[in-house]
Amino acid sequence: MQGVDPAWLPDEAFRPIGTRRTLIRGSGPLVDTVHGEVAEACARFGGRVERDASPGPYDLVLEVTGAESGDRGGGEAFTIERGAGRTTVTASGGSGLLYGLFHVVRLGDAAFQGSYGREEQRPASALRMLDHWDNVAVHPVMGQVERGYAGGSLFWADGRARGELLGRVRAYGRLLAACGINAVAVNNVNVHAAEARLLTDRIGEVAAIAGALRPYGIRTHLSVTFAAPIVLGGLPTADPLDEAVRAWWDGVTARVYEAVPDFGGYVVKADSEGQPGPFAYGRSHADGANVLAAALEPYGGTVHWRAFVYDHRQDWRDRTTDRARAAYDHFVPLDGQFAPNAILQVKHGPMDFQVREPVSPLIGAMPRTRLAVEMQATQEYTGQQRHVCWLGPMWSEVLRFRPEEGASVGELARGGLVAVSNVGDDPFWTGHPLAQANLYTFGRLAWRPDADPGRILDEWIRLSFAPGHPRLHEGLRTVLDGSWRTYEKYTAPLGVGWMVQPGHHYGPSVDGYEYSPWGTYHFADRDGVGVDRSVATGTGYAGQYAKPWAEVYESVSSCPDELLLFFHHVSYEHVLRSGKTVIQHIYDTHFEGVEEVEAARAVWAELAGLMDPARHARVAERFEEQLRSAREWRDQVNSYFFRKSGVADAHGRRIY
Amino acid sequence: MQGVDPAWLPDEAFRPIGTRRTLIRGSGPLVDTVHGEVAEACARFGGRVERDASPGPYDLVLEVTGAESGDRGGGEAFTIERGAGRTTVTASGGSGLLYGLFHVVRLGDAAFQGSYGREEQRPASALRMLDHWDNVAVHPVMGQVERGYAGGSLFWADGRARGELLGRVRAYGRLLAACGINAVAVNNVNVHAAEARLLTDRIGEVAAIAGALRPYGIRTHLSVTFAAPIVLGGLPTADPLDEAVRAWWDGVTARVYEAVPDFGGYVVKADSEGQPGPFAYGRSHADGANVLAAALEPYGGTVHWRAFVYDHRQDWRDRTTDRARAAYDHFVPLDGQFAPNAILQVKHGPMDFQVREPVSPLIGAMPRTRLAVEMQATQEYTGQQRHVCWLGPMWSEVLRFRPEEGASVGELARGGLVAVSNVGDDPFWTGHPLAQANLYTFGRLAWRPDADPGRILDEWIRLSFAPGHPRLHEGLRTVLDGSWRTYEKYTAPLGVGWMVQPGHHYGPSVDGYEYSPWGTYHFADRDGVGVDRSVATGTGYAGQYAKPWAEVYESVSSCPDELLLFFHHVSYEHVLRSGKTVIQHIYDTHFEGVEEVEAARAVWAELAGLMDPARHARVAERFEEQLRSAREWRDQVNSYFFRKSGVADAHGRRIY
Repeated sequence: MQGVDPAWLPDEAFRPIGTRRTLIRGSGPLVDTVHGEVAEACARFGGRVERDASPGPYDLVLEVTGAESGDRGGGEAFTIERGAGRTTVTASGGSGLLYGLFHVVRLGDAAFQGSYGREEQRPASALRMLDHWDNVAVHPVMGQVERGYAGGSLFWADGRARGELLGRVRAYGRLLAACGINAVAVNNVNVHAAEARLLTDRIGEVAAIAGALRPYGIRTHLSVTFAAPIVLGGLPTADPLDEAVRAWWDGVTARVYEAVPDFGGYVVKADSEGQPGPFAYGRSHADGANVLAAALEPYGGTVHWRAFVYDHRQDWRDRTTDRARAAYDHFVPLDGQFAPNAILQVKHGPMDFQVREPVSPLIGAMPRTRLAVEMQATQEYTGQQRHVCWLGPMWSEVLRFRPEEGASVGELARGGLVAVSNVGDDPFWTGHPLAQANLYTFGRLAWRPDADPGRILDEWIRLSFAPGHPRLHEGLRTVLDGSWRTYEKYTAPLGVGWMVQPGHHYGPSVDGYEYSPWGTYHFADRDGVGVDRSVATGTGYAGQYAKPWAEVYESVSSCPDELLLFFHHVSYEHVLRSGKTVIQHIYDTHFEGVEEVEAARAVWAELAGLMDPARHARVAERFEEQLRSAREWRDQVNSYFFRKSGVADAHGRRIY
Repeated sequence: MQGVDPAWLPDEAFRPIGTRRTLIRGSGPLVDTVHGEVAEACARFGGRVERDASPGPYDLVLEVTGAESGDRGGGEAFTIERGAGRTTVTASGGSGLLYGLFHVVRLGDAAFQGSYGREEQRPASALRMLDHWDNVAVHPVMGQVERGYAGGSLFWADGRARGELLGRVRAYGRLLAACGINAVAVNNVNVHAAEARLLTDRIGEVAAIAGALRPYGIRTHLSVTFAAPIVLGGLPTADPLDEAVRAWWDGVTARVYEAVPDFGGYVVKADSEGQPGPFAYGRSHADGANVLAAALEPYGGTVHWRAFVYDHRQDWRDRTTDRARAAYDHFVPLDGQFAPNAILQVKHGPMDFQVREPVSPLIGAMPRTRLAVEMQATQEYTGQQRHVCWLGPMWSEVLRFRPEEGASVGELARGGLVAVSNVGDDPFWTGHPLAQANLYTFGRLAWRPDADPGRILDEWIRLSFAPGHPRLHEGLRTVLDGSWRTYEKYTAPLGVGWMVQPGHHYGPSVDGYEYSPWGTYHFADRDGVGVDRSVATGTGYAGQYAKPWAEVYESVSSCPDELLLFFHHVSYEHVLRSGKTVIQHIYDTHFEGVEEVEAARAVWAELAGLMDPARHARVAERFEEQLRSAREWRDQVNSYFFRKSGVADAHGRRIY
């Protein structure tokens, strides 16, 4: 699109297809989309595309073998093989063909070289979703996009759907399909007054967005308020066991499907940070989720029910309450009670998207419930798209984690993977151009959770930047690859988290949440720091894990260094498994983190001239802010712990 | 007024006059106001009032001896005497007569008993002013009234002057006159876009407000932006030495006086917290003030130029910059350069209205400049009108302070006393009904800075609550008299200040401003706390004082306990002049402070039934919040210093 960054779909990525001869077999809207993509590439690069039975020869055949099942696109799997000078992609439905097309794009010329045997690709999960925390009406505190760092909303502006700009939404759907995402929730989980009405009299605006996303196989979901029967329906209650409430949800859902026949379903944040929920009626969260699930079931829709339920008005003086325990304590007793089309959406860690958390013990503990795992692509706690922080390695660690002997998190997430989107109406989509890598990586990991994130990064670089520049490729890799660990180094140490400015969450404030009602403490005193979550002497959180993790985390001696302060309160002189004391580790990592940002900035400077100048300049400008902020983190954290501990830096560096 | 608390002018306060026979001699608008007051009292209570030469006998004669000088009201002094069964109040102008009338109201029946000799009363300063930090258009962060805790603005609502509600403004003027205030600035010193235009095309709204205040001798002032020649005048510069800029100010000021003939003048916050100022043009603040003074001079107006100039983007790592030094460093070199009608308005302390600060060293250091001393009636840092905190003792300490041998602050404030108003459109005027005492006390101290605040409190209680209830009077005195010291006890200790939540400034956050750019630090570490502002080893701030204070503050051994941490960094085990260690003092005062709030709340509960139930209920409800907040302060401050120092409370009380 004019004036909008092409991200990982620059025209050039279509040259290998666009210079060749392609045959497309099959019909249906998504096959039309595939045809349109190939035709546009051919128009640009001189190739040729035919449909159905036209005689050959062809370099590429894209064919749907089954009857495409309506707008839904049918199966998402595809096969690819090459022989006799022809590459063949086969799918049982239009969606699969679309994914196959983008697979060929990713392969580039290699797709057309030599011969290779039949390979099947299918997504690990049927649901690969982005949640947009976009407000329709600008919120006085949270703005147009809650926790958004990429301008305004792609979907909403000035209180309503962007009518004339839905072309941008279509382009967004195209990018998402090209990395494997197939579902989008178009409004904030905190549902305010204007947004509530998207469910009823404003459903037409949702339908318009759905229409723009549909050609790329993206289904549209809606965040709704649990109180909708009251605030929209005029009922005296939202009790999920009340017959009138059930009937109201049934009726309203039927009308939603009239407007959006392939509607994906509802997302609900209930009894969480002030949102209404079933607790008000003495009902369980399964009761709450199931009334919506029942309404959606006839149409094949799902309800995503968020497990982010905790006491956000905790008294910091109360050491017995541990926010980390909350999701497990609330939901594990409900295992088996959720309807089949109710998906419990669990944040990957027990707290809230800190730079380092253990994996939520809920995952694996509810075998009779479909769980979706929620990630956060928007960098609320990881630099807010002013800092480079590629989250691929973190997400991959989470997805490969095995809660007990057996399945990994990626395998246990039968309800799919969800990320909070990092996209807005910014020309670079994500504010920081390199944050596009997070969106891309999430999509590819959602498709295949055991994929090697380093290979995804390489793929993203090859697609997004002109391929064949080894120095550019290497430079980008250097800047991105270790950026999450760099960010971790200069922020909160050893898994303890928080230490951010309250409210907006940007920049350091070591005690910012220490005496707050949010349940987010580090308990630093003159002797030590950390939260004792052991069973023996702490909150018992470590006991929520299955073996071996319950034992690994329980003991200071076996707990991994990077999570030590999440699980234990230790003295500053405690010696880590790394051989360093906690206090020296804090000092060292904070100095190193800043040095690594300085080094990355220098690498970036060297890449000027190897890419679009606007893209280079935007990143260069953000590096200045990242460096300023990283130094601020370093100095505040080091000063704070030096003032508390009185222990001097072993290397005599400057601590203020 | 209907639905509005009568504050210190209940109908009953006029019974002694209203039941008697009064003669009024003189003419002019303020004499008409006096007549109206007496006539209304007589209508209510059966007395009689005549004007001019009517034959007697009379109980009270109110007479203007001079020719009242137009609307300005002439002299403000009056005399009172009683003999031969007649009380006589004499003034040379209408203002004096008005003040004399309210003096009789304050005296009550005592004004009419026995005989007493002629006593003259005259205000210590010609300018006794309230600054309203009221926005015309609601500010997205600061709201209708910046740092306002009493509802919306009395003057402005929904983006414009309250047309139909100017009756409330008139009632406000009446209350102010009854405590001695004679000037009001009607808009925020942070002048935003809508407010800037009050100076030009929106001056009519200011004139309407001035018209409502004029009958009570209150002159109206306006906060203006130094950039007005640019933003309103379309000039390319606001350089105060630019001829076009001077001409612009002259012209605009002439038009202001056409609209408001008794206009008081301008208030300017320049080069302060982001406001524009003369620094941008390489000019001094005297240059800046004088261009406005010159424009106002032909009409008898004054410019109040605020001395609140400091670096609000300081680096916390920079220990050499001391915000406390800033006003002195900026302004003392300019002594003698300000025009006679330019008043330098100095906050009473060097920082910003903390519960305890030393007196600003600027006061007394600029003998050739007219200084006004600024207090803060609105309780930004003293409980935000949710806590009882009667500031009379603090203000009195400031006003009686003698910067060197010789004149007191009250005497040195030749430019008058100014307070930031604590009034809004709340039915009780000040949110917390007992905060009315602050407004009243400020007015009375502005009239007579050496007055005994305890007697002012008694006066306020007698007027505001039905007199003659010893238990009620004693109860109110108990609740209010020590409330400032109580507040000090449970908040930041020993003069160090801050420790508040950033931004809104309510509630504790010990490190909230510790690593901020605001220059507001306590430097607590595991060994000690406080800011070294000595000349010998610190920032040198103590040296800005004249003798004896420079020496008193310089030394840890002579510095008063209550300011120790403002001037010195000492160890937790340092023994105060009180005999206690610093750390034990912190614990003790924080426990005591909460106990004192509990006791005051109990006293208040006992007063139910002795006053208007709505007033009692409002205070009772605020006591609940004060107690909750005081406990939060106690626990956060004690926990913070226990965690830092490791020193146990000598009395074994609960520290979290």
